[in-house]
Amino acid sequence: MATVRTGKEPDLQDIFAYVDAHREQFLERLFDYLRRPSISAYGEGIAEVAAYIAGVLSQLELKARVIPTEGWPMVFAERHDAPGAPTVLLYGHYDVQPPDPLDAWISPPFEPQIREGRIYARGAGDNKGQHFAQLLALDSTLSCRGKLPCNVKVLLEGEEEIGSPRMPDFVRAHRDLLAADLVITSDGPVDPSGRSRILFGVRGVLSFELRARGAARDLHSGNWGGVAPQPLWTLVHLLATMKDARGNITVDGFYDNVLPQTELEVRALADLPVDEETIKRSLGVEQFEEPSERGFAERISAWPTLTINGFHGGYGGPGSKTVLPCEAVAKCDIRLVEAQTAAEIFAKVEAHVARHAPEVEVVWQGGMDPSRTPLDSPFTEPIAEALAAAQGEEPLLVPAMGGSLPDYVWTKILGVPAFGVPYANADEANHAPNENLEVARFFRGIRTGAAILAHLGNMGPVRMHGRDAAGSRRHTAPPRLGPGAVVQSPQSF
Amino acid sequence: MATVRTGKEPDLQDIFAYVDAHREQFLERLFDYLRRPSISAYGEGIAEVAAYIAGVLSQLELKARVIPTEGWPMVFAERHDAPGAPTVLLYGHYDVQPPDPLDAWISPPFEPQIREGRIYARGAGDNKGQHFAQLLALDSTLSCRGKLPCNVKVLLEGEEEIGSPRMPDFVRAHRDLLAADLVITSDGPVDPSGRSRILFGVRGVLSFELRARGAARDLHSGNWGGVAPQPLWTLVHLLATMKDARGNITVDGFYDNVLPQTELEVRALADLPVDEETIKRSLGVEQFEEPSERGFAERISAWPTLTINGFHGGYGGPGSKTVLPCEAVAKCDIRLVEAQTAAEIFAKVEAHVARHAPEVEVVWQGGMDPSRTPLDSPFTEPIAEALAAAQGEEPLLVPAMGGSLPDYVWTKILGVPAFGVPYANADEANHAPNENLEVARFFRGIRTGAAILAHLGNMGPVRMHGRDAAGSRRHTAPPRLGPGAVVQSPQSF
Repeated sequence: MATVRTGKEPDLQDIFAYVDAHREQFLERLFDYLRRPSISAYGEGIAEVAAYIAGVLSQLELKARVIPTEGWPMVFAERHDAPGAPTVLLYGHYDVQPPDPLDAWISPPFEPQIREGRIYARGAGDNKGQHFAQLLALDSTLSCRGKLPCNVKVLLEGEEEIGSPRMPDFVRAHRDLLAADLVITSDGPVDPSGRSRILFGVRGVLSFELRARGAARDLHSGNWGGVAPQPLWTLVHLLATMKDARGNITVDGFYDNVLPQTELEVRALADLPVDEETIKRSLGVEQFEEPSERGFAERISAWPTLTINGFHGGYGGPGSKTVLPCEAVAKCDIRLVEAQTAAEIFAKVEAHVARHAPEVEVVWQGGMDPSRTPLDSPFTEPIAEALAAAQGEEPLLVPAMGGSLPDYVWTKILGVPAFGVPYANADEANHAPNENLEVARFFRGIRTGAAILAHLGNMGPVRMHGRDAAGSRRHTAPPRLGPGAVVQSPQSF
Repeated sequence: MATVRTGKEPDLQDIFAYVDAHREQFLERLFDYLRRPSISAYGEGIAEVAAYIAGVLSQLELKARVIPTEGWPMVFAERHDAPGAPTVLLYGHYDVQPPDPLDAWISPPFEPQIREGRIYARGAGDNKGQHFAQLLALDSTLSCRGKLPCNVKVLLEGEEEIGSPRMPDFVRAHRDLLAADLVITSDGPVDPSGRSRILFGVRGVLSFELRARGAARDLHSGNWGGVAPQPLWTLVHLLATMKDARGNITVDGFYDNVLPQTELEVRALADLPVDEETIKRSLGVEQFEEPSERGFAERISAWPTLTINGFHGGYGGPGSKTVLPCEAVAKCDIRLVEAQTAAEIFAKVEAHVARHAPEVEVVWQGGMDPSRTPLDSPFTEPIAEALAAAQGEEPLLVPAMGGSLPDYVWTKILGVPAFGVPYANADEANHAPNENLEVARFFRGIRTGAAILAHLGNMGPVRMHGRDAAGSRRHTAPPRLGPGAVVQSPQSF
C-alpha cells in the first residue's frame, strides 16, 4: 500500500461545534433507537429494528439494505463520496442481550433514562450507543460538509449477542460488497483508566472436550481398585503430557506457528503501564501462573494458553465415597495467537491424544481464529491522530486482547486490517442489569467518529494490494506509540 | 503358640442329625429374630433387639450382658467349658441397614418369607442370619453334648451398619473382657461360585481430599488465561507426581512398609482360579489398569492403590464455557496393605504435597488400617478341616479382600488372628431390597459353626504368647491350600 500524506491536520472545529449544538436532538434520536428491543436470543424486535436502522442509514443518504440470512438479517449501507480515498467499513451490531433479571434494573431496560451523567438502557453501550455515535458522526459531517471525506460502508449484524454464527460465511459470500481498506469496530470499553485505546487484535480460541471411559459402571474402589481402569487418572496423566508445571504447553508442534512478537509489539507491550501488584490484589493471588518471568501484558497478548475450563468425574458431595468412577470429562480451551489456527491446533491435540492416550475421545466444541493487525499498519497513525484530535490525548495501543472476538473475518477472510476503537466507559455493565453509557463518552464517540473519517480522508489516494492489505510484518515505519494498559472486554468469548 | 493335635477328626454326626431334626424350630427362631427391626441408622428397635439377643444368649447358658457405649450398645456373652482349649471370639452385628426403598421388596422386609429356597428379610444375610447360625451351633452342641468343646465369647455390635465408629475404642477399653485366641466373623458372602472360603485379611483405606484455590473468583479464560493460577492444573500436576502412568504410586516413601507376600500367600494367590477374561467382559474393559503384568488376585490382595474417587472443578454442563475456575477438589482413597497404616501414609501424602504443591490443602477424610492374619496361623487347619467336614469340600483361602473392614481391631488392637468364615450366598442382596439367605446355607452355617467349635476343641491345650498370637510370618508349616477366588464383599468400606 502507498499512502500520500497531505502533511496537514484536518480542521474539525465546525463539526465539533455542530455536535455540541445538537446534543439534545442526538440524545433523543439515540433514545428512540434504545427504546426498541432487539433481542437476538429470542428474536424479539429483530426485524423491526433492522428495518428501523436501515431507515436511519437511508436518511443519511447512504444506500442501505436489509440482507436476509438464515438467521437474523444484516443491515448494510454504503456511500462513496471520495474517489481515491480509503474505504472504511464500520462494523457494529443492532441486537442486544436479554435484559434479565428485570427486577435488578433501576429504570426499565427499554426506557432510557439519564442519571448522574449516564444513559441507562439495554444496548446503551453494547452496542447501539456506540455504532449510533458513528452514524451521527456521518450525519454531522454530512450536515457541515455535504459529503464524506472518505468512502464508508456500514455493516450492522443482528446475531452478535448469540455468537455471530453466520458472520464467517456471510463475509465469504459478500467479499465484493464488503470490500474495504480497513474495518473499524466501536464496541467494548475504553481502558479502565478512562483513556481511549486502539485494539489491533484478539487471541483466538479453540474449545474441546477430553472424554475418558473406564468400566461399564462405577465400581467399589476396594473391590476393584488396582484392577479397573481409572478414567480420572487417564485424564490426569494425559493432561500432564499437554502442559508442564512450568506453564509450557507440550502438545507436539504446538508452538510451530506462534510468530515472534514484532519489535513494535514488544515495545508496545513493554510500554503498557500495568500495575501487577494491584492486579494480583484484585485477583486475590500472590503469584501469576507460571512461567513467572513473563510480564502481565505479554501473558495476555503474546502467548497462547491451555486452560482447563472444567474437570469432572466421580463423587463430588460432602465427605468421602470409596468409588472408582467409570468416566471423566475435561473441558479445555486454548487461546491462540498469530499465526495459529483453531483447525491446526485441534488436529495437533487430536494427534497428541492419539499418541498418549488413544482411548480418550477428543471432541471439538468450537473455534475462532486469532486476529492481529500489525501495529505498523498505514492506518494506525491517522486513527491515533483522530483520537487525539477528538479527545485531547493520545490513545493507548493494544497489540491484542486476551479474549476472543471474530475479528479474523476481517483480517483473514476479508483480508483487511481491523481496528477496535471503543467508546464505552469500562463500567458499562454490558450483558448485565443497568447497562449504561456515559453521556460524555457518547458525544466523544460522535466527535471521534467524525475525526477518523477526516483523518482517513486526509491520507490521500490509497492503492490496495488485495489481501496483503491486512498488513505486513515487514513494514518498518514505526507508528507513534502511547503508553497504555491491556484491558479485557467483558463481552469477548 | 504351641498346639497339640489329637490326630483324630472329631465325630459330628450327632450334632448334624440334631440340626436336621430341628429345622422347623430353628427357622422359626430365626424368623422371630428377623421380625424385630434394629436399624442403627435411625436407632429404631436397637435397645429392644440388644436385650432380645442377650436373652437368647442367656438361654444358652452363656453369661450375657448388654454393654452401653456412647452409641448403640454391645452385646457380650461368654462360656468357658474347656480349660486349656482355645477361646474363640465370635463377632457379629445385630443392627441392620434401613430397608428403603420399601416398595422394591416383594415381601415386607421385617416379615420373613421363604420363596424358592431363600429366606427373604432385612438382616437375613447381613448379619442376623449368619451370627444366629453360630448361636444355633452353640445350642445344638450344648443340646447334644451338654458343654462346648472350646471356650466361646460372643460380641454382637449395634453400629456395624453405620461404620463401627466405636469399635476401636471399645476393643482398646475391653482387652481383658475380649481376650481370646482367635476371632471368627461370619459375615458377607461365600465365593460367587458357591464355594466356601476363609478370609485372612482386608486392605486398609485412607481417604483424603486435595483442595486447590486460585483467584478469589472464577475468571474469563481469555481475559485471564496465562495470568491467573489454575487450580485444576495445580491438581493435575500434583496428582501426576503421586502416581505414574505405569501405575506406580510415587508418593515419597509410599512402599516403605509394604511387606512382601509370604511364599504361602504367593502360592495361594497363584492358585486362585480367576477367569480374567470373564471379569474383563463383566466390567466392559479390554485391559486392567497398569501395571499390566499383575494378575487379578495379586492386584486385589497384595498391592496398595491410589484411586481418585472424584475430581471436580469448573464448568460441567453441556457445550463449552470459557471459564478459568478458581477452585478444584480431588477426593482420593488409598487402599493400604500390610504393614502400612493410614496415619503413616497420610503423613507421607502431606509431606509429598508440601514438597510439590505447598499451596494445596490436604484434608483427612477417614482411615482404617489393613489387617492380615498369616495363612500359616495354627488355626487355619482346624477351621479349614471344620468347613470341609460340615460342607463336604475344601474351602478357598483368600489372603486378603480388596475392600476394607475394621478387622484391624482384632489383629492390631486385640492382637489375635482373625478369620472370616462367611455363610451367605453371593447374591444375598445385602443393603438392598429383597435381602435373602439360602435356607440350605443357613443350616450349613449351623453345622459349620458346630464343626469349628469341635475342631478348635480338638486342637488340645493352647498356650498363647499375648499379642504375638496374631501370628508370625516366620511360621513355616504350610496349611492345606485349596483353589479359590478373590471375592468382593459388597458391604465393605
